[in-house]
Amino acid sequence: MDRRIDIISIAVDDLERAIGFYRDGLGWPSWSHPADATAAAGSDGEPTDHAVFELQGGLSFVLYAQTSLARDAQESDTSRGATRFILSHYAASKDGVDALLRRAQSAGATVVGEAQEEPWGYAGLFRDLDGHLWQIVWNKE
Amino acid sequence: MDRRIDIISIAVDDLERAIGFYRDGLGWPSWSHPADATAAAGSDGEPTDHAVFELQGGLSFVLYAQTSLARDAQESDTSRGATRFILSHYAASKDGVDALLRRAQSAGATVVGEAQEEPWGYAGLFRDLDGHLWQIVWNKE
Repeated sequence: MDRRIDIISIAVDDLERAIGFYRDGLGWPSWSHPADATAAAGSDGEPTDHAVFELQGGLSFVLYAQTSLARDAQESDTSRGATRFILSHYAASKDGVDALLRRAQSAGATVVGEAQEEPWGYAGLFRDLDGHLWQIVWNKE
Repeated sequence: MDRRIDIISIAVDDLERAIGFYRDGLGWPSWSHPADATAAAGSDGEPTDHAVFELQGGLSFVLYAQTSLARDAQESDTSRGATRFILSHYAASKDGVDALLRRAQSAGATVVGEAQEEPWGYAGLFRDLDGHLWQIVWNKE
């Protein structure tokens, strides 16, 4: 696994409020909804559940609705005790996603559900030994 | 505030176990205890409470003892419901730390304690509107 974290997603209760804090409050000058990220929110017209800030070194910082994060994490609990962030890592291929999930599992991690086809690619999740959630992602583009 | 996250610190219950997972399990090829990070763990000989992996774009990934993270966060709770990660941002000066903390507070964040002198510099913490912990850091070096 390359030494790289590509996305940090933090859980937010109110997306617009959180955007206001980071964009207007702290002054992060812009944020974006890349096409693939918008697709991830559903192509059926449901409102977007996240906002993306592009940071240094290809790192993305994502404000992500807690309800969506809980769904990804397969948790029913959306309270503060629930998972509050996801670290994402890009793999070079679908096989790369599967290989990394197997490797993590061999090392003692817990794979969450099955890796899945997505409109924008392929992704799976694991929890490390302390329960922290990692998403392994292959993007088609 | 520059669009930059410099450190991601995640809480771990057993540091050696967590190092084993990321270094040996996932194969992140090396990890380091920079001199300033070691000093942060106390110059009085107490065992180190963290391990640092250098990632892309100057990003550091830190495995950090949950007890130490709870102390920084001024939480007595070290259970899973407690704060599980810190995002850190480097400021260019002590004044820069203070200015950023004030700015965050003006935007509705909660400053945690007072910014403090450290052997390696100066640092303060705030929680964003959803309770996520940010550390603003000035390093002497």
